[in-house]
Amino acid sequence: MGIHQYFKSLSDLEKIYRCPGKFKYEEHSVAEHSFKVTKVAQFLGTVEENRGADVNWKALYEKALNHDYAEIFIGDIKTPVKYADPDLRDRLAHVEESMTHHFIQEEFPEEFRAIYHERLKEGKDETLEGKILSVADKVDLLYESFGEIQKGNPEPLFNEIYRESLDTILKFKEMKSVQYFLAEILPDLLRGEFTNQSELEKITQSILEAHKIEQTFAIDD
Amino acid sequence: MGIHQYFKSLSDLEKIYRCPGKFKYEEHSVAEHSFKVTKVAQFLGTVEENRGADVNWKALYEKALNHDYAEIFIGDIKTPVKYADPDLRDRLAHVEESMTHHFIQEEFPEEFRAIYHERLKEGKDETLEGKILSVADKVDLLYESFGEIQKGNPEPLFNEIYRESLDTILKFKEMKSVQYFLAEILPDLLRGEFTNQSELEKITQSILEAHKIEQTFAIDD
Amino acid sequence: MGIHQYFKSLSDLEKIYRCPGKFKYEEHSVAEHSFKVTKVAQFLGTVEENRGADVNWKALYEKALNHDYAEIFIGDIKTPVKYADPDLRDRLAHVEESMTHHFIQEEFPEEFRAIYHERLKEGKDETLEGKILSVADKVDLLYESFGEIQKGNPEPLFNEIYRESLDTILKFKEMKSVQYFLAEILPDLLRGEFTNQSELEKITQSILEAHKIEQTFAIDD
Amino acid sequence: MGIHQYFKSLSDLEKIYRCPGKFKYEEHSVAEHSFKVTKVAQFLGTVEENRGADVNWKALYEKALNHDYAEIFIGDIKTPVKYADPDLRDRLAHVEESMTHHFIQEEFPEEFRAIYHERLKEGKDETLEGKILSVADKVDLLYESFGEIQKGNPEPLFNEIYRESLDTILKFKEMKSVQYFLAEILPDLLRGEFTNQSELEKITQSILEAHKIEQTFAIDD
Amino acid sequence: MGIHQYFKSLSDLEKIYRCPGKFKYEEHSVAEHSFKVTKVAQFLGTVEENRGADVNWKALYEKALNHDYAEIFIGDIKTPVKYADPDLRDRLAHVEESMTHHFIQEEFPEEFRAIYHERLKEGKDETLEGKILSVADKVDLLYESFGEIQKGNPEPLFNEIYRESLDTILKFKEMKSVQYFLAEILPDLLRGEFTNQSELEKITQSILEAHKIEQTFAIDD
Amino acid sequence: MGIHQYFKSLSDLEKIYRCPGKFKYEEHSVAEHSFKVTKVAQFLGTVEENRGADVNWKALYEKALNHDYAEIFIGDIKTPVKYADPDLRDRLAHVEESMTHHFIQEEFPEEFRAIYHERLKEGKDETLEGKILSVADKVDLLYESFGEIQKGNPEPLFNEIYRESLDTILKFKEMKSVQYFLAEILPDLLRGEFTNQSELEKITQSILEAHKIEQTFAIDD
Repeated sequence: MGIHQYFKSLSDLEKIYRCPGKFKYEEHSVAEHSFKVTKVAQFLGTVEENRGADVNWKALYEKALNHDYAEIFIGDIKTPVKYADPDLRDRLAHVEESMTHHFIQEEFPEEFRAIYHERLKEGKDETLEGKILSVADKVDLLYESFGEIQKGNPEPLFNEIYRESLDTILKFKEMKSVQYFLAEILPDLLRGEFTNQSELEKITQSILEAHKIEQTFAIDD
Repeated sequence: MGIHQYFKSLSDLEKIYRCPGKFKYEEHSVAEHSFKVTKVAQFLGTVEENRGADVNWKALYEKALNHDYAEIFIGDIKTPVKYADPDLRDRLAHVEESMTHHFIQEEFPEEFRAIYHERLKEGKDETLEGKILSVADKVDLLYESFGEIQKGNPEPLFNEIYRESLDTILKFKEMKSVQYFLAEILPDLLRGEFTNQSELEKITQSILEAHKIEQTFAIDD
Repeated sequence: MGIHQYFKSLSDLEKIYRCPGKFKYEEHSVAEHSFKVTKVAQFLGTVEENRGADVNWKALYEKALNHDYAEIFIGDIKTPVKYADPDLRDRLAHVEESMTHHFIQEEFPEEFRAIYHERLKEGKDETLEGKILSVADKVDLLYESFGEIQKGNPEPLFNEIYRESLDTILKFKEMKSVQYFLAEILPDLLRGEFTNQSELEKITQSILEAHKIEQTFAIDD
Repeated sequence: MGIHQYFKSLSDLEKIYRCPGKFKYEEHSVAEHSFKVTKVAQFLGTVEENRGADVNWKALYEKALNHDYAEIFIGDIKTPVKYADPDLRDRLAHVEESMTHHFIQEEFPEEFRAIYHERLKEGKDETLEGKILSVADKVDLLYESFGEIQKGNPEPLFNEIYRESLDTILKFKEMKSVQYFLAEILPDLLRGEFTNQSELEKITQSILEAHKIEQTFAIDD
Repeated sequence: MGIHQYFKSLSDLEKIYRCPGKFKYEEHSVAEHSFKVTKVAQFLGTVEENRGADVNWKALYEKALNHDYAEIFIGDIKTPVKYADPDLRDRLAHVEESMTHHFIQEEFPEEFRAIYHERLKEGKDETLEGKILSVADKVDLLYESFGEIQKGNPEPLFNEIYRESLDTILKFKEMKSVQYFLAEILPDLLRGEFTNQSELEKITQSILEAHKIEQTFAIDD
Repeated sequence: MGIHQYFKSLSDLEKIYRCPGKFKYEEHSVAEHSFKVTKVAQFLGTVEENRGADVNWKALYEKALNHDYAEIFIGDIKTPVKYADPDLRDRLAHVEESMTHHFIQEEFPEEFRAIYHERLKEGKDETLEGKILSVADKVDLLYESFGEIQKGNPEPLFNEIYRESLDTILKFKEMKSVQYFLAEILPDLLRGEFTNQSELEKITQSILEAHKIEQTFAIDD
């Protein structure tokens, strides 16, 4: 049915919720997450550019906007670390890729196929834009977990997600935008009064230390 | 954390919705679906017993109640026929099995492990009870699609689901309970006035014919 | 309209919520509660059997699965203890019974009526299976209240529900499955960090004492 | 806890839904229904006054505003006509009354008790204001059922509710406000294009005839 | 389309939520808020009357019931104090007024226009009834913010709303009904155990002091 | 609080729903709409580029992504054409602009202010990218109204929205991407069977004619 089918599919992403069954306070659709990641990537890219990097904006927006489109096919898989088969992620990624490939071949007119094969492929590569996407994706996930933690969700899952998000962000600690995030944004997130504030600060410090980053959060002055 | 973890997991099944993003009128959690399948299986088993079969009730209830428990791990995967990789289902089933296995080993005390390995394994086998489960699972899916179709959901997906459910049910057409369903229940479902009544009747007739079943739905007398 | 009407009624139980207007974090449909109670009863029955009891599994599953079906007629009545007329429950139970009776007579073919009169009658009797149902029903209610309490719902109602559930469970304290619940499951539920953890522990201890049960929750070692 | 408890109870009425499990397109809380009934009663009273009647506005507003407050105690009971015990309504009404009585005695300071016993008692009496309430209550119910019917809800229940609401309204056909409703408002409701328009018109005509009211709905000119 | 259009518009107020995007635990529709404000105004009016005032009940109910009807046109505007243009409220109020005016002219028959122009105009004037409305509107807002605060919503917004509501109520501190609220109702609201109890008490004391009201909340005796 | 406040604000856009109170089948948050508009703009830009235009991708993505950010301040205003004050839109737009201005000044560090003043200003200008945004915004609105119409929502509002969206799109009929939309996508949208298919086709034809565009929708071959 062509591009009409593609346009209609966008609204399916409004109905696929992230981590189904886990968020108790605010649920997030894949469409919403994609929007936020693109906005965050826009900001991180701006920091990089202001600090002298050469940002390929077209590539960055394409990567961020499309990075979870393939969830249209099999949804947002819950992958509790504890019971996960080690190669699960790889196998599911492969399934998604082949479904995306079939979809483009079937629905897109010839003239757009190559473009969309490029746009809908995995974007987290070694380019600056790929790395910004990796960070932006985890910054939004960190904020999603923070939204639950500060409202008092007692599920340890959200501490784990917070921890894992921050840990992934720190793998890119040589990036100027990550340094900006650590110095200027994260302290504001931790400042403020909420039930689990001190625990979150502790988690944060321990991960920073594991990455050998020294930082004192002067929360109360 | 043991059985407490298992009891808590039951409530996760209340938050995992079937076919996420597709149902517009009534969503169904996996817990609700499991309840309805068990109730339908109970009725189908009663028909079989009344017609002379020997029903192993304990096995039937165990199969029905637990048949989707493994969705606790990776949710209800959307598998649009059109773009699906042929061996996707097998690979996902294998992933679920291994996660279920790990879960039982980790959370259940030794004395219950063998019992729950048996209970949580795939139940749709060649026994009478396995076949009743296969039928009951599709009867509920057929009712779920019917709920959308009769309220006017124009997505062709639900006609496909109806068609595929009925088709699977008819693979068991030698069963007394399936014959009862076709003769006594399905005609009532199609009777009544709703927007797509005549189309649904047409689909039904064509599938019955494909299975060489003659039946006249005397809808209006 | 016969069995079709009965099958359709199952989906009504997905839309009747327990204790309407009270749960703030997770609502529970009657269908979901019935599923969870049956799963809990399955586990409790297993404990009894492993400890030497002779469990009538067919009866147990029938009781658990159907125990709230009559709510299809008048919903889940809120009965705040404080303002309740003493014989309210009896009168409502009688209303439900007579509506269930009429329903079966009208919708079920002759051959199934006796079976379903038996299945849909009150199941909480003096048999082992009736007692397991009484316990399983309250175990799920206890978990439902716990879900609210640990997330910080300040309504005293949930402490009352927790208290009353545990109190009812303890009326069956001679049962092996109840002893298992007290020794192996409840301590794990109370362990863990959540806002009202210490208060819940206090309530628990006071009820255990009232039932003359000695138990030390070694929470932190 | 006094009046604070009463104020808090108002927000419980936001969470009690009418006819739970039945509305598929728009659910209505008891608080919302009470608001709409009061607004409709205000209009009907205005018609009566403009046509010469002497309206006791204070009494009218009190009756309309409070007429379903007692649902705070046992919710909105589903009473499917078909299986209902004949005296069910009476028995439930009596239960509500006694709970309301206890509530006022316990929560209201002495100086307000008599006033609130009066305000919260059954308001549908033989006074003009009592009759306006009876009509307004059914006008809102008729609109609620209309909202489902015109959007295509195929449940016969809503045709029944429409029918029964109109039938009750017509029991007051000697009232000026009812005559105004029939002449000026109902035709506009039926005018317009929606799936079941002609069926609804047929139902309407048959009830009007049963009440010996001649009216031609000149829908299309 | 006349009064039918007006009746239909009432159900739009069920779908307009107050402060969209902010409430995490309980959302409130404009219809629900209007109901609660009218009930609170009824109580406050009763206090005034019992203390000797002459209450115009007809005017009071009209004001309370209709005070937010104009939100049907542009919804409930979020007005975060921080970024608000000082004359924003005035300009929006003027927009609402002119839309209300057009609506009445277009939908209401001549005979009702003057009455409804009067009823739907701004009701918070200098009469006793206008002042009771001002207080009742803020009492409900205070309860709405309290509902979030006591359940642990960490957004400072709700403390601000609580503060601003109480502050506005205190502008009417010479009213007997406000004095009753402060002496008999507010202490019960603050009594009880919830996460932010002490902070709320502190806010309350500081506002009372700013209004030179001495009050000791004897919470624990 | 700086950029943290900005990141947090993104999640507010998940909770602000478009056209509050009107959509009955699928609601759309501002975040979701922004995502879809950006995806549609991406496709339209691709068509323009493939047909020889020079697309400034960075500008296009910035415009699309941010075009409704200001709704964070006063929400999505309902503007029913019928009762609207002619200059309402202008006045509200001005209010939004000044709030956006204040927000950036207060929350963004100096180095980012100029950039974000540029990014968050009105994007629908006379550049190619501004025009693509105008079209993409209406294409998504057209799909949103289509989603309601094809599922049978009888509110004339959605026909009006469809009509107005298409009318606005056609103001840009000289654009290659609009021509592509009309020739390749719209016919597929109208093809298919749904309740109001023929009416929608009629509306479409009449608007096309008003814009002097000849097109035969060969729907059934």
